[in-house]
Amino acid sequence: MAQIYKVNVNTSALKKAGRDTYKENTVIQIGDLKIGGSDVVVIAGPCAVESKEQMLTTAQAVRDSGATILRGGAFKPRSSPYSFQGLEEEGLKILRLTSQITGLPVITEVMDTRQVELVSEYADILQIGSRNMHNMALLKEVGKSSKPVMIKRGMAATIEEFLLAAEYVMANGNEQVILCERGIRTFEPSTRNTLDLNAIPMIKQLTHLPVIVDPSHGTGHWWMVPPLANAAIAVGADGVMIEVHYKPEEALSDGDQSLTPEGFNEMMEGLNKVALAVGKKIASPAMSLV
Amino acid sequence: MAQIYKVNVNTSALKKAGRDTYKENTVIQIGDLKIGGSDVVVIAGPCAVESKEQMLTTAQAVRDSGATILRGGAFKPRSSPYSFQGLEEEGLKILRLTSQITGLPVITEVMDTRQVELVSEYADILQIGSRNMHNMALLKEVGKSSKPVMIKRGMAATIEEFLLAAEYVMANGNEQVILCERGIRTFEPSTRNTLDLNAIPMIKQLTHLPVIVDPSHGTGHWWMVPPLANAAIAVGADGVMIEVHYKPEEALSDGDQSLTPEGFNEMMEGLNKVALAVGKKIASPAMSLV
Amino acid sequence: MAQIYKVNVNTSALKKAGRDTYKENTVIQIGDLKIGGSDVVVIAGPCAVESKEQMLTTAQAVRDSGATILRGGAFKPRSSPYSFQGLEEEGLKILRLTSQITGLPVITEVMDTRQVELVSEYADILQIGSRNMHNMALLKEVGKSSKPVMIKRGMAATIEEFLLAAEYVMANGNEQVILCERGIRTFEPSTRNTLDLNAIPMIKQLTHLPVIVDPSHGTGHWWMVPPLANAAIAVGADGVMIEVHYKPEEALSDGDQSLTPEGFNEMMEGLNKVALAVGKKIASPAMSLV
Amino acid sequence: MAQIYKVNVNTSALKKAGRDTYKENTVIQIGDLKIGGSDVVVIAGPCAVESKEQMLTTAQAVRDSGATILRGGAFKPRSSPYSFQGLEEEGLKILRLTSQITGLPVITEVMDTRQVELVSEYADILQIGSRNMHNMALLKEVGKSSKPVMIKRGMAATIEEFLLAAEYVMANGNEQVILCERGIRTFEPSTRNTLDLNAIPMIKQLTHLPVIVDPSHGTGHWWMVPPLANAAIAVGADGVMIEVHYKPEEALSDGDQSLTPEGFNEMMEGLNKVALAVGKKIASPAMSLV
Repeated sequence: MAQIYKVNVNTSALKKAGRDTYKENTVIQIGDLKIGGSDVVVIAGPCAVESKEQMLTTAQAVRDSGATILRGGAFKPRSSPYSFQGLEEEGLKILRLTSQITGLPVITEVMDTRQVELVSEYADILQIGSRNMHNMALLKEVGKSSKPVMIKRGMAATIEEFLLAAEYVMANGNEQVILCERGIRTFEPSTRNTLDLNAIPMIKQLTHLPVIVDPSHGTGHWWMVPPLANAAIAVGADGVMIEVHYKPEEALSDGDQSLTPEGFNEMMEGLNKVALAVGKKIASPAMSLV
Repeated sequence: MAQIYKVNVNTSALKKAGRDTYKENTVIQIGDLKIGGSDVVVIAGPCAVESKEQMLTTAQAVRDSGATILRGGAFKPRSSPYSFQGLEEEGLKILRLTSQITGLPVITEVMDTRQVELVSEYADILQIGSRNMHNMALLKEVGKSSKPVMIKRGMAATIEEFLLAAEYVMANGNEQVILCERGIRTFEPSTRNTLDLNAIPMIKQLTHLPVIVDPSHGTGHWWMVPPLANAAIAVGADGVMIEVHYKPEEALSDGDQSLTPEGFNEMMEGLNKVALAVGKKIASPAMSLV
Repeated sequence: MAQIYKVNVNTSALKKAGRDTYKENTVIQIGDLKIGGSDVVVIAGPCAVESKEQMLTTAQAVRDSGATILRGGAFKPRSSPYSFQGLEEEGLKILRLTSQITGLPVITEVMDTRQVELVSEYADILQIGSRNMHNMALLKEVGKSSKPVMIKRGMAATIEEFLLAAEYVMANGNEQVILCERGIRTFEPSTRNTLDLNAIPMIKQLTHLPVIVDPSHGTGHWWMVPPLANAAIAVGADGVMIEVHYKPEEALSDGDQSLTPEGFNEMMEGLNKVALAVGKKIASPAMSLV
Repeated sequence: MAQIYKVNVNTSALKKAGRDTYKENTVIQIGDLKIGGSDVVVIAGPCAVESKEQMLTTAQAVRDSGATILRGGAFKPRSSPYSFQGLEEEGLKILRLTSQITGLPVITEVMDTRQVELVSEYADILQIGSRNMHNMALLKEVGKSSKPVMIKRGMAATIEEFLLAAEYVMANGNEQVILCERGIRTFEPSTRNTLDLNAIPMIKQLTHLPVIVDPSHGTGHWWMVPPLANAAIAVGADGVMIEVHYKPEEALSDGDQSLTPEGFNEMMEGLNKVALAVGKKIASPAMSLV
């Protein structure tokens, strides 16, 4: 007799994001790259776009190690209004240029309904940050964009609320949604967040959308990123997002959780073995243009 | 020898919100009403504006029981995109009308940077909801408004982050900021949130801004609201925000945590005694126009 | 039409602790003192018994300010095995002596099933600490004692589990159980714990047992204790437990959260007013013998 | 330049458990079996010992699939005093017998200082459950036993406190300590606990002791156990502990999170591949006697 699956999540409002609607996994295609298929995607890059040199150096390094998508923030949601807020449109231009040179598609955060159009011009994937996962106005607005959207889980969002955020985007017309687990807030003070890998099989059970794991924010310590990236792939994630900085000690933000290009390269070797162990492989990087 | 005060919060970025800048409590004035002074303010009204009849009936009832400010949401940040999202501009008009008839100033939520100007035309106080406490673009935008802003604590925001949200508004030019504790998310499932009354003396120690407590969201149960409102005043809050609905069982949202007008009236009697016990009194209601 | 009470706690196992069994509040009597009646009890004293001088000085001071029960730990559950572990039986003797001199009944913690008999010889009330709330063997053992038992809520215990801990004691024959809310563990780092005052009306709704609040552990800061003690009485608790040390800066444990006798005296004046505001009064202290 | 390791945990009291004391990993040997070496150990069996038939059937099945240690509770720390509390000494005898027949060493929980001697007679490893991680009296008592001790992390224990619990045992003379991450309590309601895999590299950084992961309690859902077991090995754990019941739907406790023997067998196949991917292998099972 088969064991009964129990899932104590109310899925009645998941009209588009739920497994009941689409049995097949959603695969999001960006050029030749597929997210949510049998290959594992690796998103890598610095927390914030700081300069052309920084982006290009880092992008080439991570691409050469096998990264498939480039990350970098042009608009940064910092806790303090006096912290570096990002290069804004200049940052978007640097991102686009780096993408053209390296062949890597780019993902970057959008924080304001009024910027969705602008950011969509430069980015291949729009990122909704943790702090805006409950920003319903923004979710509706990116729901009208033609670009894929990656939603990071809010720091205290339940899985049910996380999936409803995806539903907000989909209900507004954009069905290209990627979910990203990046750690939740708990009482444990030794790590920046508690990475919730339970969420991956639970989300896979409930939705057909791809799910990515961010062990950089999930731990807050660069030296914890490789083992947690391994765990993310082992547990069934469709990819990982990794902060890499060519000079972490000089990073304008998140230096403590950024790998060096060398550390990233080493991580990729291990990750590849774990991917193979669970019947997947790392997605091929972009064709090198430079 | 005096006992040493210890406060383990990094206040270095609180350039405008911190006690080091302004020793005196900030008092925010709306007509004759003062928030943050020696009187306790009571904000009351339904979760959402549903109709003229609903607003007017409720407003008159809460005013007659001693409420000093009227609340009601025209834009509602609901978890599901398929739930009632508010009457939007029509709701704002009903709010304004009710204010004119009853003499009560009104507070209502703004969720989108593009709506700040519109909402400012109708509201006396702009509310930033819990889900948008980390929405830096919105905080900056209301920082340019001439209307006072009440920020509700994010459901997983530390007190430090809460004060930095106020700093975002103030750094953009608007120093009329009110804080609102409304419960944080914990493991306890029997209440909607865990109301963090520790936050009140801690906030009072760190900032000169007024602080309000919302026991309706903080508990999720109408029958728990009166004792927690008492506790809020006893612990030193400058006021409370209470959900009241003339027919809770028919409310489009938050019926379980809404008091009836009769329940609210009874609560006010008890609250007045507690206010007197801590050397305060309930602020006088608006002059009755109707 | 009456509003419906909703309580999402499974009370089916509360055969003795539940309101369905005993409608009337349980009142626990120790000599002339009643816990759980219309008077508010104040338990005060140091975290740990350190010396005769310390206990006697503190006990007389708190009694003169109106405390009704003396606290002091002889066995201390410290996080590190190398921290002071308490004076053990010598501490119990000092407690008893101080009780005889001052007329104050004493409460002290028992941590080991093998010590229940010993501690029962010296204490008027047995305390089960937070760290042992889930220690079922100990709960069963104090259930066989003839002394009243005060159970402190575990730092991550739900209210349902808290009440089931009381049920463990009662199911073993001892129905004299007092509950004590002392803060739960959350993400907020500025306070030692998050005092959960929501728990008081919820517990009062579910059980007939008396409930005490400990704002010293609930906040971790002595200067936050008086406002939170006020809040505890305003929300409906049957009493408070307060750490007082005659020289907090020299305390072997919990100095940061201990009031001086002067601070305690000042707190009592405020507390009395709040008690009167909610229709109660502070229980009379013991008859002075010294 | 090497990146700096940051670890924000106070390790000053880790005199025996800390890496500063012993650089080499502790390897605990039970017969031919090594815990903490290059092989991954798999502890499997039912939540509670229910009968000879149940234990023997399950033990043989899990051994045939590659389990290296048998688990089963004779004393059960149940939330309700009216739930099944375990077969007690009869359960210990069944465990011993099953061990003799199958060749599997056994681990079982001890809950009371007075039972340590008794349980030590029957068990190969003593288990301290989550609910007793802060039970200092019990930690001291097992510190005097000659049997290895596995401590499960308290549901709200920080990693620092978890390691201090190990220090309690070691400070009392028993240096054979195994740690077990089994999930912490968070706001997420869809899983029983949130398995904290961040804890594994953090613990490995701070201590030389072996660390095991329990995905059964860590998730509460049997269908989530295999992916999380994979993740546990990928992240660097020395083993996993898995609940297996021959008839989960009839289990007296934890049926929802127990794998069937068939499910367990399938899990082991996957686990072996992940172990190889990270340069380890599953420890060989006991020599079959039956």
